[in-house]
Amino acid sequence: MVILGIDPGYAIIGYGVIDTEKTNMVLDYGAITTPKEDTMPVRLEAIEGSLKFLFDKFKPDVVAIEELFYFKNQKTVIQVAQARGVIMLACQKYCGNIFEYTPLQIKQALTGHGRAEKAQIQYMVKAILGLSSIPKPDDAADALAVAICHSQTSSVLNPNRAK
Amino acid sequence: MVILGIDPGYAIIGYGVIDTEKTNMVLDYGAITTPKEDTMPVRLEAIEGSLKFLFDKFKPDVVAIEELFYFKNQKTVIQVAQARGVIMLACQKYCGNIFEYTPLQIKQALTGHGRAEKAQIQYMVKAILGLSSIPKPDDAADALAVAICHSQTSSVLNPNRAK
Repeated sequence: MVILGIDPGYAIIGYGVIDTEKTNMVLDYGAITTPKEDTMPVRLEAIEGSLKFLFDKFKPDVVAIEELFYFKNQKTVIQVAQARGVIMLACQKYCGNIFEYTPLQIKQALTGHGRAEKAQIQYMVKAILGLSSIPKPDDAADALAVAICHSQTSSVLNPNRAK
Repeated sequence: MVILGIDPGYAIIGYGVIDTEKTNMVLDYGAITTPKEDTMPVRLEAIEGSLKFLFDKFKPDVVAIEELFYFKNQKTVIQVAQARGVIMLACQKYCGNIFEYTPLQIKQALTGHGRAEKAQIQYMVKAILGLSSIPKPDDAADALAVAICHSQTSSVLNPNRAK
């Protein structure tokens, strides 16, 4: 199963692609970035275009995306949510199999407890995927974390399917 | 100039199309609705499809869309913002000429003051457009209001161009 993990944003969108049937699971990871000089509509269009490229290249069976909470960063929440809508639309159009996980669920899946620090998550991403170093940028590591989270919790009756 | 006004949402999206060069300015108005039984990704896809239909049909020169503030409705702000992102993307792809107005700017443009009640706005929409009754649903009246707002404030150096 090929899983595309996404850490949503508008200036930087982390992505990570893993294949759970391979020993070296990681197919790719990185970040889509949009220049702040561009208008928001242009940035949203660029995000959709970059995601389409990833879907064409890796043809993921499923997308796992981090949920957004307004208390995380009220100032930018509208902009991040707008980008997340575009990301959800692309996932629906090019895959159709979408699961959402809260930061708490991701932390628990990777470390066994919900109070894990960022560094612990990143260490577990590196260890689980057998990488030689912690993936950079942080957004890519976060995206790989949500992909791993889905690989460990997926089932027929997965309650995290996008509603 | 054909202006498409949009009142963003995810369950109901108001739209209004006016042609400022015609005596009977209103070309169309109404609401795109998405069923709550559908998942959010499916609803976002439906919104994009319905907007594409409107762009194909009316080929607006410009889009005027209401800005979103998180203090308006914190509970649903993330969902509305996600839909607004999809709406902005469609506006960028199918028109590219996007202006945003705050509720305050819309009220001032239509009534001359920023504390106008909903009923006053609706009355002015009806009066300005020479309609026989107030447009329904409210979302359609709001969309016509933002279209009128743009028609009254547009200029070469319009500061409300989407940033």
